Amino acid sequence: MIRVVLIGAGNIAFHLAKAFRDTKEVDLIQRYSRDNKNDKYFDRNIPKTNNINSLYKADIYIIAINDDAISTFSKQLSFEEGLVLHTSGSKPLNSLKCSANKGVFYPLQTFSKEIELNYNKIPICIETEYSNDMDLLRSLASSISNNVHEIDSDQREKLHIAAVFANNFSNHMFKLANDICIENNFSFDILKPLIFETVKKLNDLSPYEAQTGPAQRNDIEVIKKQLQQLDNNKKEIYNLVTNSIKKTYNS
Amino acid sequence: MIRVVLIGAGNIAFHLAKAFRDTKEVDLIQRYSRDNKNDKYFDRNIPKTNNINSLYKADIYIIAINDDAISTFSKQLSFEEGLVLHTSGSKPLNSLKCSANKGVFYPLQTFSKEIELNYNKIPICIETEYSNDMDLLRSLASSISNNVHEIDSDQREKLHIAAVFANNFSNHMFKLANDICIENNFSFDILKPLIFETVKKLNDLSPYEAQTGPAQRNDIEVIKKQLQQLDNNKKEIYNLVTNSIKKTYNS
Repeated sequence: MIRVVLIGAGNIAFHLAKAFRDTKEVDLIQRYSRDNKNDKYFDRNIPKTNNINSLYKADIYIIAINDDAISTFSKQLSFEEGLVLHTSGSKPLNSLKCSANKGVFYPLQTFSKEIELNYNKIPICIETEYSNDMDLLRSLASSISNNVHEIDSDQREKLHIAAVFANNFSNHMFKLANDICIENNFSFDILKPLIFETVKKLNDLSPYEAQTGPAQRNDIEVIKKQLQQLDNNKKEIYNLVTNSIKKTYNS
Repeated sequence: MIRVVLIGAGNIAFHLAKAFRDTKEVDLIQRYSRDNKNDKYFDRNIPKTNNINSLYKADIYIIAINDDAISTFSKQLSFEEGLVLHTSGSKPLNSLKCSANKGVFYPLQTFSKEIELNYNKIPICIETEYSNDMDLLRSLASSISNNVHEIDSDQREKLHIAAVFANNFSNHMFKLANDICIENNFSFDILKPLIFETVKKLNDLSPYEAQTGPAQRNDIEVIKKQLQQLDNNKKEIYNLVTNSIKKTYNS
């Protein structure tokens, strides 16, 4: 059994606690959170502390807190044994400032507490400071996922940027579409079959091949007319994304 | 049986021909295309003409051609009986210039020939010039879909703009993410679980609620660092979409 202490009480910590509960390989022996804000979401049987000096001795400590707090928090970890991990896509391994060995456990997924996830398909990107620790970290990741990748800090940083476009920015396009629905009194539901098909296509086509629409066809009349009907924020985004699609297909 | 003549040989015409083949209510008696470019995709049993003066007498004529060609093409239809439809989201009903009664049959979906579709969930937006024709048009739409909506030209135009954001622009975000994968030698496959989850969330959350990421958290350090690593085109889009997300959550 891999003995794990989990630090943090946000969306990632919540989902990791859930995922580890269902494994035989991992024993989540303690969790730490500085306050009790999200305690209700966690299994009460997991011992909880808010005192950083009362952490149990474990094989692995997972720091699942805000990216910007990782360095400051990890500086306070004075023990030398065990493997300390962070879960951030954008922070390098050396943002950890503890004396113990370091590693990264980055689950490439969007986490919301309300949403159930099938953990075994989530890509988990792992990295260790010392190759000796790789077996242990790989065992931890494999206990919840069949999709484990060894990726260094530079590559992970690029991957995180790709994820920002793939998830955050595409979701914002759905948000703007939703706004147009609200402004014109129709339900966002009417767009859902289209949205589901948009990503289902990616099973068979690359996004390059899957592209359709006025910008891809360089349909200047439609583009001009649609631009006239948008507020400034949407107009700017429409213009820039349309030009980027036009450059892709018509140059 | 509703007797239908189908005009055009692009993606929409291809999928409509397939969808009608499986209905009992519709008899696709003829199709028209000016050339034989896509003939191989269509059922050979459907009589085909490339002579606009040889169209069979039908209950409904569906013009599924490029948006910009609808007016010019429809001017050439000299008959007065039957209902003439176009399938465009962005063109008003009166872009049809024929003497016969007019209507619109707009399937709100992204169509590629390579991709199989489940037609009965596709929203079909219908409109007629004369209310007398609505029953016939509704029967046609209901023969392939359970998701039929009566929507006028103004509303359809707005809906089409929403669809451009929801489909075309989100797909372009996937394309840019794919580019980053290619530039850094990792497979786009690693992003697919994230992308599928991005839209699966919309079953339970609004896009507003589903948003995560550096812009939503206003994580200025990460945003700054990611911007530095992008080429000009991606940088402009990153900047604009990030600011739009920031305005949504942090104002």
